[in-house]
Amino acid sequence: MSELKGYKGKIRDFLITNKVDVGDLVKITSELTYSGILMPRYESGDESHIVLKLKSGYNIGIEFEKIEKLEKTGERQSNNENSQTIEKNEELPKILLLSTGGTIASKVDYRTGAVTPALSAAELYEAVPEIAKIANVDAEVLFSEYSENLQPEHWLEIAKKLDSIVDSDYVGVIIAHGTDTMHYSSAFLSFALSGFKKPITLVGSQRSSDRPSSDAALNLISATKFLVNTKSKGVFVVMHQNESDDAVACHLGTRVRKNHTSKRSAFQTVGSEPAFVVYEDKILENMKNSFFSENEYNPRINLDTKVALIKYHPGFNPEIIESLIKLEYRGIIFEGTGLGHVGRTMYASIKKAKENGIFLGMTSQCIDGRVSMTVYESGRDLLDMEIIPLENMIPEVALVKAMWVLGNSNSDDEIKNMMLENYSSEF
Amino acid sequence: MSELKGYKGKIRDFLITNKVDVGDLVKITSELTYSGILMPRYESGDESHIVLKLKSGYNIGIEFEKIEKLEKTGERQSNNENSQTIEKNEELPKILLLSTGGTIASKVDYRTGAVTPALSAAELYEAVPEIAKIANVDAEVLFSEYSENLQPEHWLEIAKKLDSIVDSDYVGVIIAHGTDTMHYSSAFLSFALSGFKKPITLVGSQRSSDRPSSDAALNLISATKFLVNTKSKGVFVVMHQNESDDAVACHLGTRVRKNHTSKRSAFQTVGSEPAFVVYEDKILENMKNSFFSENEYNPRINLDTKVALIKYHPGFNPEIIESLIKLEYRGIIFEGTGLGHVGRTMYASIKKAKENGIFLGMTSQCIDGRVSMTVYESGRDLLDMEIIPLENMIPEVALVKAMWVLGNSNSDDEIKNMMLENYSSEF
Repeated sequence: MSELKGYKGKIRDFLITNKVDVGDLVKITSELTYSGILMPRYESGDESHIVLKLKSGYNIGIEFEKIEKLEKTGERQSNNENSQTIEKNEELPKILLLSTGGTIASKVDYRTGAVTPALSAAELYEAVPEIAKIANVDAEVLFSEYSENLQPEHWLEIAKKLDSIVDSDYVGVIIAHGTDTMHYSSAFLSFALSGFKKPITLVGSQRSSDRPSSDAALNLISATKFLVNTKSKGVFVVMHQNESDDAVACHLGTRVRKNHTSKRSAFQTVGSEPAFVVYEDKILENMKNSFFSENEYNPRINLDTKVALIKYHPGFNPEIIESLIKLEYRGIIFEGTGLGHVGRTMYASIKKAKENGIFLGMTSQCIDGRVSMTVYESGRDLLDMEIIPLENMIPEVALVKAMWVLGNSNSDDEIKNMMLENYSSEF
Repeated sequence: MSELKGYKGKIRDFLITNKVDVGDLVKITSELTYSGILMPRYESGDESHIVLKLKSGYNIGIEFEKIEKLEKTGERQSNNENSQTIEKNEELPKILLLSTGGTIASKVDYRTGAVTPALSAAELYEAVPEIAKIANVDAEVLFSEYSENLQPEHWLEIAKKLDSIVDSDYVGVIIAHGTDTMHYSSAFLSFALSGFKKPITLVGSQRSSDRPSSDAALNLISATKFLVNTKSKGVFVVMHQNESDDAVACHLGTRVRKNHTSKRSAFQTVGSEPAFVVYEDKILENMKNSFFSENEYNPRINLDTKVALIKYHPGFNPEIIESLIKLEYRGIIFEGTGLGHVGRTMYASIKKAKENGIFLGMTSQCIDGRVSMTVYESGRDLLDMEIIPLENMIPEVALVKAMWVLGNSNSDDEIKNMMLENYSSEF
């Protein structure tokens, strides 16, 4: 009965008396009758409700005092159902599916009530059998982490794996990835694998694969269609374009941002249309230039994490910049206000950072639009302090690019030039 | 000739020979003929062009090597033209116009080429004479600063000024304000002046008042119409709704963000429609509840700036949190990923911050949507560490609110309760 974590006092006693455990199917008679799976509570939950997961996939809290009857109608569900093997069609184009974890590769775990990254790449492939009709997929697990736990070391590992298959017969790659930091990973791969010979898609989902409203299947199927049909190279984030189930956007991996916490169409290309849209069996193209500025494959799989992202705001304490100097940071990307400004209270600490050889880049917390630092006095003051305006680069992308550049160069001039060169459609 | 700042070598010699100075009207014959005002160059500019400001308000660079002839056609323009006095109609409703600086209260300074906050509130009023037909305006200058230089002390000063006129016969207030940090100021006023008895509008412009494409006039006129006609209390940011010149949005001061660096419609209400739209002479209302949750005026004009805004990203160094502890910070607002997550590499430093009595609040860097920390393991871990999920509060607003709350309370429980109470439509 240790699974009844979180249920306390008389509710816990009531559940024990009724011999039900978290994960069991139960029927509760209250003002209405509810059937579902008994979910666990958390320390932080209130103490007067029992929570069921209904068939629809949604959770409901039922007030304990109003419960008339509770019946157990089935044992705890197992997550390990037998997986069927999908027959491969050797004549179809070959695709590599790498799984890193995330909601797309997850199931609701009825023991903990949480969604956990439990599906292997092969299971994921099996969960969406439609893919097998479009491509011949090899599946491999790299790691099983939600993307908030992915770190730059993971980016390096993904990049090295991709580098190892650059000359293989795969027509393209799907990376199943958590959505939280998918755009950071896509930016790193765009820089580190500049000129990569095949299209790379990062595919996530906002609802886990075993939920009725999951976007996993359509996103995976659309990515597969895109890889099999496109002639474009590049790194793309492939996610629902809107709340309907008919259009999936392929966003440039260096121009995309997660702009909503929960919508299926959370990802948006900043300031423009998505590069491609997979609409039923058609692939619509909005992209004018090639993704990589150079055609040649030039992998540089290095980085230095000593870069900070600093959002300026009224009352920002310049001592934070001093702390970064003490921590031996090598780069600071500012999210300035408006066209790329910070208050003059920051000037002394910025000069000191510059004297310590720290690369200083300016982006805007407005996110959309471009910095323009010659219009106002503040901007010109900052230019005089040798802060580099990074045009319309998204702050998060500028951060990842600075990590990459500083991992590949120690020369101030080269660092500046690399930051301003357009490698992978980041400008 | 010291005004020829930035022009070097033979270009400088050429300008001196031709006896022209920055600010003079000149006519340049090159491949085409250009007439305009000679603009200064900046250290960071290239050294092969002369820059003119054309009548249209836009600058053009003319390649020096291609110039055939330069003629001076007029002396440097003065910014101090005689201002006409507008006759007041005492029968119209009274409005107070406070100027704090910013582009709306600026002119292009032809000596430095920069836009500077040079217009007084009275001049601003005179620059938009249409206002005098709608309201009887008293104008006052509080300061003349671009808003990137406004600090929390300025917020306090604005709030105290407003508090002093709460019982006056003004029907409402216009605060002319730079756009860079207008949404931070509007948030502070919303909290500090909870229940304020009159509507307050913050009005900015993205192009200075003396430019042909300026949005200053329409924004000011629309704010005046709104103040004279509305029955709503509250703090609103009043700016162009789109790129056309017929609709101006009144955004809730706690739900608005500058989402574009340069567009006239840069400001957007996050996740919703603007509260009001001034369309020609009509005022369309989208607002359902009153702006303030309590009807009574309850000024609390205090703050504590020891609050940091921390955007989590892969590779974020937890030592930065340790630095904040050393700097005796009292609050940290996280911009987590997705539904409100940070990587588990942060846990030790977060626990330490909590042990040091620091208030920890969670928002999302997605900006739109709401945090939901019970769905995934990471969120639940953070809840166990007593990070407070701040629903759909915008990160910048959460920062300002935390500064305000910490300036008004020292009790952990009260701080938490105040952060979660909806004072001014921030949720």
